[in-house]
Amino acid sequence: MCLNRQSSIPLYEQVVNYVKEKIRTGQWPVGSRLPAQRKLAEWLKVNRSTISTAFDELAAQGLVKSAHGKGTVVINNTWGLLTDRKPANWQQLIEAGHYKPNLAIIQKINAAEFYPGIIRMGTGELSPDLLPNRKTSELLKNLNLRSFSLGYCEPKGNRQLREEIARYVAGFGIQTAPSSILIVSGALQALQLISIGLLERGTTLLLEKPSYLYSVNVFQSSGMRFAGMPMDSEGMCVDKIEAYKKNTPHSMLYTIPNFHNPTGRLMSAARRKQLLAVSARARLPIIEDDVYRELWLGSPPPLPLKADDHAGNVLYLGSLSKALSPGLRIGWVIGPEPVIDRLADLKMQNDYGSSNLSQEIARAFLHTGAYATHTAHTRAQLKIRRDYLLERLDSLFADLAEWQVPTGGFYIWLKVIPDIHAAALFQEALKQNVLLNPGILYDRDAGQYLRLSYSYASFDQMDEALRTLRRIILEQSQRSF
Amino acid sequence: MCLNRQSSIPLYEQVVNYVKEKIRTGQWPVGSRLPAQRKLAEWLKVNRSTISTAFDELAAQGLVKSAHGKGTVVINNTWGLLTDRKPANWQQLIEAGHYKPNLAIIQKINAAEFYPGIIRMGTGELSPDLLPNRKTSELLKNLNLRSFSLGYCEPKGNRQLREEIARYVAGFGIQTAPSSILIVSGALQALQLISIGLLERGTTLLLEKPSYLYSVNVFQSSGMRFAGMPMDSEGMCVDKIEAYKKNTPHSMLYTIPNFHNPTGRLMSAARRKQLLAVSARARLPIIEDDVYRELWLGSPPPLPLKADDHAGNVLYLGSLSKALSPGLRIGWVIGPEPVIDRLADLKMQNDYGSSNLSQEIARAFLHTGAYATHTAHTRAQLKIRRDYLLERLDSLFADLAEWQVPTGGFYIWLKVIPDIHAAALFQEALKQNVLLNPGILYDRDAGQYLRLSYSYASFDQMDEALRTLRRIILEQSQRSF
Repeated sequence: MCLNRQSSIPLYEQVVNYVKEKIRTGQWPVGSRLPAQRKLAEWLKVNRSTISTAFDELAAQGLVKSAHGKGTVVINNTWGLLTDRKPANWQQLIEAGHYKPNLAIIQKINAAEFYPGIIRMGTGELSPDLLPNRKTSELLKNLNLRSFSLGYCEPKGNRQLREEIARYVAGFGIQTAPSSILIVSGALQALQLISIGLLERGTTLLLEKPSYLYSVNVFQSSGMRFAGMPMDSEGMCVDKIEAYKKNTPHSMLYTIPNFHNPTGRLMSAARRKQLLAVSARARLPIIEDDVYRELWLGSPPPLPLKADDHAGNVLYLGSLSKALSPGLRIGWVIGPEPVIDRLADLKMQNDYGSSNLSQEIARAFLHTGAYATHTAHTRAQLKIRRDYLLERLDSLFADLAEWQVPTGGFYIWLKVIPDIHAAALFQEALKQNVLLNPGILYDRDAGQYLRLSYSYASFDQMDEALRTLRRIILEQSQRSF
Repeated sequence: MCLNRQSSIPLYEQVVNYVKEKIRTGQWPVGSRLPAQRKLAEWLKVNRSTISTAFDELAAQGLVKSAHGKGTVVINNTWGLLTDRKPANWQQLIEAGHYKPNLAIIQKINAAEFYPGIIRMGTGELSPDLLPNRKTSELLKNLNLRSFSLGYCEPKGNRQLREEIARYVAGFGIQTAPSSILIVSGALQALQLISIGLLERGTTLLLEKPSYLYSVNVFQSSGMRFAGMPMDSEGMCVDKIEAYKKNTPHSMLYTIPNFHNPTGRLMSAARRKQLLAVSARARLPIIEDDVYRELWLGSPPPLPLKADDHAGNVLYLGSLSKALSPGLRIGWVIGPEPVIDRLADLKMQNDYGSSNLSQEIARAFLHTGAYATHTAHTRAQLKIRRDYLLERLDSLFADLAEWQVPTGGFYIWLKVIPDIHAAALFQEALKQNVLLNPGILYDRDAGQYLRLSYSYASFDQMDEALRTLRRIILEQSQRSF
């Protein structure tokens, strides 16, 4: 949205017209809150005083009303004045929905990622120049688009893609069949289906602390509780698991053994064995989130838990989002067939299956070997990026922070030494065009941590972001004395 | 799965090995139920006695146990005998999940649609030969795949696609902006997001009786109640709505004004005005499901409710699934911006957005005009199919059923005159390779109805299916005397 600065209509009046149009077309109905003045100013690229004048004008016309602490609310619309039509109370409905909204800071991050000029230092995805555009175009050109590719799909997903996945995971020891595989739109959807399909309210989910799962509300919205397990250098500590399971029989365990999000840590082979043994003794089901498997930077990670899961205790999640393309939205769940049947049935109720076009292209990537070629390339590039960020940290943060060298994945879990106020640091960095993922998203006790990513920002941007960050930390820590 | 009939290993032993492999790899873990003998026999294409022998052998080896009324359950696995590993109790977890499974008959239909040789007489989708394979291939070849097409998307979806949709819906009177549009993976996902994001448990949903919504559990799983409104020749009757809304203030209304699923009925322009007026008086929010709009066979339908919704009472759902391709999984919700923001946030929590590849191709279809060309073609073809099915009904069912001529969409709502038992009819037809959608899926009082579709089966198949159906109805109605 842009205002016309050459127009003879004053800017504030253009803002008034803009808001009126929103109200007139029902986009901002009666009862809805206008965006904050500051936000709208940022958005329309005008001074805040211009917005303030416009809001006063709108209030004078009886269209909006400012209530202290509640912002500015639409109280009428022109048709409302002329006719007796009254709008539904959408605000009340929004508050009634039983699913929790994303954390405010996550919503902010989701939006800010698309600000022009922003440096994304926490983003968990590959930089655009690492995405396989050329190869995808080539595969698309040669895609044998069959009629069924454009129709609805089998409940568990494209059968040939499931066959390819069965072959692919056999490469790291998982023996399975297409009927035990469900195609999903990314691993997050798998978690969503598990939360509504396998767990009752009040179930306790054991997981690493910190964990990616703390940053999304998928399980909390379904009434689950979390029990965070500490981590050491070999990954999740397993010694408290059995006691927990005894106290809360309805438990499940969630783990990211490979290049854990956000710590980057790799679970050792020995720890994997221990975890499987504990799970077997305690009859504890495990969700193994293995979306970072391909992103090893030294040697391949140990076999997944699922490879040694003869008892059928493990639900295994994989995805093309991290190593190939998040935009395809293709992931998979592998598990006992009755569980997969249940999840497939719920997937049909949620969205009638994933995009067939994405499934066809995913199949082509796996079938032609292009996926293997691409991941090798990605690993080489990621390694250069990781080494660069580590070098920059060495030279700019040796006195300010501590970190470990990740052997794969996207993340460096940075512990800042001076006392920082995470929210203030986030805000100030954002003002200076650096978008951060603060540690508190993943563990409320991790206020001193940042999840830095070397996968997205360019080399120059990483350097600039670290310099900015250093400056802000020094300023804020001085101020706090 | 095929058994080897040339092998020296007896078939029953091959079945034993097949089941053992399932158990060994954890696909059928301890506690899970084996498929019914009849089903497995069908599946592996052997006699039921072969399966029965195999099950006896498995029981003798201590791997499974048959319990009366509970089927055959896996009670051990070879590793379980050798080690002390015990599997998680997945069956208990499946039963604990708070989302309802699909109705058994819907699950059956979802699976049976992929049986070879089946005639799909109830299917709500276009026949494969009506899908735009050639055009899609052509658009894919020329797709300007930009780097962001393969990355994650903005929370509301690809901005350019939203701009195209805003232009497209303006063609039938909906004035909106990209910021008031959310891209979803089909209209069903929109309903899912509404159910978790806007409604609290116990909300009453007013809807047509019969309705598509009765056949899915999306709202029931979130604890909503339904209040069915009768229909007349102009669509949903509106006279009881206000009384309902008064008694249950937390209500919302769901309607399919155009070529209603399953009745095929079109809501008149006058009825639309009445409904909007009632909604305004009662402050009743409306979900307008308009996925069949493009499929008019005589003249275009009246403008959508949303076009006259100056108060912002209407959430509008559209989709490419019905008139272009279900496999793309692209639909949209248009509504007040705060509502769209809320739904977009939940969409991010569910699956991080829809396939970007699908969004790009959807954009190309709209942008190039190929969508308009294709829908014109679809209408012409559908009209021929509808007329054919009507002609066949005239000649084969004049004495057996009543129906109205649909002016658009996919469906004929057939009222069978002789007393039928819907489940028995469904089963017998399936046995004879005809897949039906019984009326009870859409209204438990519609036991005498079938939703016939002229969109999917070929001409020959339609003829054959009607002959089979006639034979079964005559047999079953005679038997009941």
